[in-house]
Amino acid sequence: MKKVAIIGVGSSRFGVRNDVNMAELVFEAFKPSVEDAGISPKDIEFLAFGSAGAGVWCEEFLPAVVAAEYCGLTGAGIVRCEAACASGSASFLAAYWAVASGQVDVAAAIGFEKMRQISTSAAMEWIGRAGYYLWEFHNFGATFPAYYALYARAYMDMYGATEEDLALVAVKNHKYGSMNPLAHLQRRITVEEVLASPVVAAPLKLLDCCPISDGAVSIIIASEDKLKELKVDTPVWVAGVGYASETASIGKRPEYLGFKSSVTAAQKAYKMAKITPEQLDLAEVHDCFTIAEIMAYEDLGFCKKGEGYKLLRDGQMEIGGKIPVNVDGGLKAKGHPIGATGCSMIYELTKQLREEASNEGRQVPMRNYLALAHNMGGTGHYCYVTVLRR
Amino acid sequence: MKKVAIIGVGSSRFGVRNDVNMAELVFEAFKPSVEDAGISPKDIEFLAFGSAGAGVWCEEFLPAVVAAEYCGLTGAGIVRCEAACASGSASFLAAYWAVASGQVDVAAAIGFEKMRQISTSAAMEWIGRAGYYLWEFHNFGATFPAYYALYARAYMDMYGATEEDLALVAVKNHKYGSMNPLAHLQRRITVEEVLASPVVAAPLKLLDCCPISDGAVSIIIASEDKLKELKVDTPVWVAGVGYASETASIGKRPEYLGFKSSVTAAQKAYKMAKITPEQLDLAEVHDCFTIAEIMAYEDLGFCKKGEGYKLLRDGQMEIGGKIPVNVDGGLKAKGHPIGATGCSMIYELTKQLREEASNEGRQVPMRNYLALAHNMGGTGHYCYVTVLRR
Repeated sequence: MKKVAIIGVGSSRFGVRNDVNMAELVFEAFKPSVEDAGISPKDIEFLAFGSAGAGVWCEEFLPAVVAAEYCGLTGAGIVRCEAACASGSASFLAAYWAVASGQVDVAAAIGFEKMRQISTSAAMEWIGRAGYYLWEFHNFGATFPAYYALYARAYMDMYGATEEDLALVAVKNHKYGSMNPLAHLQRRITVEEVLASPVVAAPLKLLDCCPISDGAVSIIIASEDKLKELKVDTPVWVAGVGYASETASIGKRPEYLGFKSSVTAAQKAYKMAKITPEQLDLAEVHDCFTIAEIMAYEDLGFCKKGEGYKLLRDGQMEIGGKIPVNVDGGLKAKGHPIGATGCSMIYELTKQLREEASNEGRQVPMRNYLALAHNMGGTGHYCYVTVLRR
Repeated sequence: MKKVAIIGVGSSRFGVRNDVNMAELVFEAFKPSVEDAGISPKDIEFLAFGSAGAGVWCEEFLPAVVAAEYCGLTGAGIVRCEAACASGSASFLAAYWAVASGQVDVAAAIGFEKMRQISTSAAMEWIGRAGYYLWEFHNFGATFPAYYALYARAYMDMYGATEEDLALVAVKNHKYGSMNPLAHLQRRITVEEVLASPVVAAPLKLLDCCPISDGAVSIIIASEDKLKELKVDTPVWVAGVGYASETASIGKRPEYLGFKSSVTAAQKAYKMAKITPEQLDLAEVHDCFTIAEIMAYEDLGFCKKGEGYKLLRDGQMEIGGKIPVNVDGGLKAKGHPIGATGCSMIYELTKQLREEASNEGRQVPMRNYLALAHNMGGTGHYCYVTVLRR
């Protein structure tokens, strides 16, 4: 297996981006990524384009080839990858394997989603289908927040966490979002505001949920051999990748306290990277709802089962704590353009590992130069974990 | 790069399949493929699922995870791949690279599409978007047959081919479709019938166009190391893969006589396989419209530019001729469930290379045991070429 490095990253501003069309939004991320890598678009042999909602919440049914043309990538091999909210990570894995196989020297993974062109009710309907459509959504009317509400209720009942604990995730992530100029929601909030926000699916309230966002992120990777030709100051290496799936039917799962797919994907990635979670300097985890972040701490092995919310109470997930999580604002405040999210995590970790976040006051101190991204699709239907090492 | 072999294949019957739901249709292809490979679904570590129209012409927005669960693949890594009508080949390439990288030992590529649940007019609208939506479809109303009609007219004007020549493609492919129990259209047709069929986009008539079909195909691949553990009688090796893209905007192309993406993808695949087109025993090419098959002969190097239709007149593309093409009926008669087509080509070539098509009277005699699949997305927007060797 060839060693693979991240050599360039770029991100658009996240938010409601009716000021740009699909290709323009992608270009906003792509241009800085090739500049960062010091290459030309023509050097890119393969593009894996992560997007879930083509033709559904964006009018382009074939977004990959249109965006590729706008970026000067015409001629390259192209595929669109979809794994629901993990589409960005799926595209990163596809690009990674293209290079790791030895066939491709330079590849791009671009994550993209434009979700704000259609009505909120239409967007909600589509997100509601991110479970087992025919059975749970269509027959029982379960919306996407409802799935996570089941987990939140079960977790609170089992381990004694409270609605205030869930709110602490939102407060932390909004704090970092307020320090991130690319974030969709750049304002701090308080526990009281979260508790007083409208109930979406009890016990989850509006401020327990991530926003519906537009955004794009571009990651350029290259083989170790190619790196010798290029002038890359600080390559960030892909140390481990893990991937797993779970039953599509929530009703078939034995318990609602965590995601088996997260556990499996993380174990694979740790094994490949030959590390333990204690060695990580920071992590980006999939906080589409506040409860999801707490369960991720546990599924990823940052603490024992049922103890995630206690670490959070102690401030251990902030910069200076045991393991800072989502210091870019996470899905919760940076935003969640679903096809872009996985690449956005890798963008943030690359910047952090290169120690380039200090001008925003968000630089995590490095001990081992190791970081982890955890990206889920659906309600744990898909999970991708990536470990990076500088 | 690890050597990769096809160890099992399975295909559903193609056609209007309102008798089964999405997961059942996939299972119809998957079950024989694992039996053919002599493995259990649990042996499959990664699934690349090719499908273009999730949520558009099939109600499941996340078809991959639902189909995977029905097939007993829950737990495996899963991604859905989309490259328009080349989605099946895109999934095969993703699965190939997973194994070629050395990370995965056994992977599946499943191609699927269920296009006949929605109205024909809705299906037509979606297929019309398989160009550059905002410009050519939305502003000029160009439908998908209209794009190919431009190519047909230009080709006929330049090289002297006639409408009868186009019809010969349909006649040949329907002949082989009539011999293939899995084909959507299992009846022979005559040149006169093609010429008398209703005009869709002049000079293309109804019988110049492939049907809109439902279908699924499953391909199981394994690494050379894994093959030693398994009892595989006749592995079929992936000798070469090629991939390329073209401008999304038809209006920007310099001429309408062939597809640059086909030429580039084929050259890459030949180079990797270290062969010339003369060595091929047979090919499956992307005949969504009759003109597309003739241009493919030339783009793939089976003959010089402008001579494809002459070979066809001579009967050289039939069994016993210079290079038999689409002896399963092709997209034209076997049908074109767009996410399934690329995998369907690989299914047919595997059966042919294993010399298992004689009971249907369609076995191609083998000289070099080399075969090629050519799968396009859009109007040459994407192209994937795969060379297989027994």
